[in-house]
Amino acid sequence: MSLHSEIHEQPTIIQGLLGKQSEITRIATEIRKIDPAYVFLAARGTSDNAGRYANYMWGAYNHLPVALATPSLFTYYQQMPKLNGALITAVSQSGQSPDIIAVVDEGKRQGCASLAITNAPDSPLAHAANFVIDIAAGPEKAVAATKTYTAELLAMALLSVELADDDVRRAELQKLPIWAQQVLALDEEIARLAERFRYMEHCVVIGRGFNYATAFEWSLKLKELTYSVAEPYSTADFQHGPIAMVERGFPVFVAAPSGIILPDMLPLLRTLRETHHAELTIISDSPEALALAQSPIQLPAGIPEWLSPIIAIIPAQLFCYHLTRTRGFDTEAPRTIRKVTETH
Amino acid sequence: MSLHSEIHEQPTIIQGLLGKQSEITRIATEIRKIDPAYVFLAARGTSDNAGRYANYMWGAYNHLPVALATPSLFTYYQQMPKLNGALITAVSQSGQSPDIIAVVDEGKRQGCASLAITNAPDSPLAHAANFVIDIAAGPEKAVAATKTYTAELLAMALLSVELADDDVRRAELQKLPIWAQQVLALDEEIARLAERFRYMEHCVVIGRGFNYATAFEWSLKLKELTYSVAEPYSTADFQHGPIAMVERGFPVFVAAPSGIILPDMLPLLRTLRETHHAELTIISDSPEALALAQSPIQLPAGIPEWLSPIIAIIPAQLFCYHLTRTRGFDTEAPRTIRKVTETH
Repeated sequence: MSLHSEIHEQPTIIQGLLGKQSEITRIATEIRKIDPAYVFLAARGTSDNAGRYANYMWGAYNHLPVALATPSLFTYYQQMPKLNGALITAVSQSGQSPDIIAVVDEGKRQGCASLAITNAPDSPLAHAANFVIDIAAGPEKAVAATKTYTAELLAMALLSVELADDDVRRAELQKLPIWAQQVLALDEEIARLAERFRYMEHCVVIGRGFNYATAFEWSLKLKELTYSVAEPYSTADFQHGPIAMVERGFPVFVAAPSGIILPDMLPLLRTLRETHHAELTIISDSPEALALAQSPIQLPAGIPEWLSPIIAIIPAQLFCYHLTRTRGFDTEAPRTIRKVTETH
Repeated sequence: MSLHSEIHEQPTIIQGLLGKQSEITRIATEIRKIDPAYVFLAARGTSDNAGRYANYMWGAYNHLPVALATPSLFTYYQQMPKLNGALITAVSQSGQSPDIIAVVDEGKRQGCASLAITNAPDSPLAHAANFVIDIAAGPEKAVAATKTYTAELLAMALLSVELADDDVRRAELQKLPIWAQQVLALDEEIARLAERFRYMEHCVVIGRGFNYATAFEWSLKLKELTYSVAEPYSTADFQHGPIAMVERGFPVFVAAPSGIILPDMLPLLRTLRETHHAELTIISDSPEALALAQSPIQLPAGIPEWLSPIIAIIPAQLFCYHLTRTRGFDTEAPRTIRKVTETH
């Protein structure tokens, strides 16, 4: 079963990508020379969720605003935004999606530099871009992306560190492989936990800040693999409206690692548990957050917030894998989805 | 009941806002002088959905890329992206949200011009911004926003037309009040139709291109008012993954007005109906699209795609209003939500 083994490959892939730092230093040096006003980011699906991480990461540490491209503007409406000042950034595991390549090509026509983050350094996307970060995750056979997601996040984190030439964060990166191994050790515990959700039909997944990306990716894996209706939210958007639908027993999945966001998330989690009587599954290192969950999933202590999305998604991947098995569905090739999106 | 009457006020508000075109011409002239590289747009909830429309509108007709702000970067992480070249655009019905005002203030500190689109021209947001478009929708008493949403869309459309000085589109705008009246005449038909969904627990709402915004706003109203789990998707994202969860009878709501997108949506709608046996509610003017729905909602013929979101959302608002009544819920003050979001 390649999905399960691909989830377990992640510490090794993270270790390998950390070893390619010097290549990324070189790319960062070139990008610093260009001094882009903002990043124009094109991606779909799992890679688009990685883009949500870049949005926070590059905004918080590199002061770079990120505009998410709307590829259909390019392909359907044939209207090209003016891109002066933009660094085009295309994120695609396969490097094959024509609509993502179209964004890079248009950037080139307008004289913008472009960066591809891809698992296929010999793909049409990689050939079209000026700079390529090869995430080197090895072939991903399962249709649901797991290891390429964390590798894309790590590539974005490495680039952020090198753009800022930040020694403190450079050192923090080195612990990622160990943290990844520690959460993989939760495999059996999560397999038992997933059984509780055998008959769950719908749920919401919440997170904020850096872990807004985690909420989206957890939700996407739930939908692709387990066929549950799973809607992702930022906690801010969630509490101003959609929280209305939370009744007793309503399942809420929460990515809540320690950090600047957590103290303001705790009152919401308390309200969900104590007032709404929601069913909470919480991924966190905070004892206070975990105590509010019927199903707590404990992260190792000491992960800095900016790196927490790379680790926090791993138990969520395991959860989705085991829930899929519990339901007797195909973990390798879920119905109706294909590996390469060929949307125009 | 103010929600119902506010929905019905829309033709009058649209007519009124069309009469303020010369003010918007003046603002457009100023913005053209500034020649922004891109728009940095800050909004929440319903206004954020209006921002999705601006993203397509200003991209397609004004070649302006739109970056959606992540307000928590400003308020939690205290990290300010560099905004050189950006036109800060803040969209807020109340003009009171501190996190939206923080984005305008930071833009000002960095020397960027700012535009507020608001229903409160005397609000702190309006005072903070360089340019203000008063959407003049009158007091909105119902907690769920309806008339301020369409008025925000229209303000964005007017600005697009004036920035491009486009006579063809300027003439097309004039038909909006009549089209709005025509869809409001569907009120009783939609009241009957809504009963069918009395016991629906979850659904998805899909749209693409200009009507990506319609899918998001329809979904938000369903969640806020009817407490159904309703997840919005672009059709592109939906068919590469989440479509897996569509089983026989699964309710799918579709915003599918005629335009460049529709021909490629039709095969998806056919697959949903014929292969997945989904339950389709389709808002469209296209006989081909409507024929695929168990519950067709017919738009007037001749609405150009760029204006269709302003009209297509109105029957969706009526649908949510009537479904809320059918379920015996409060249409005026849904549980747990407040009118002004004070997220930090």
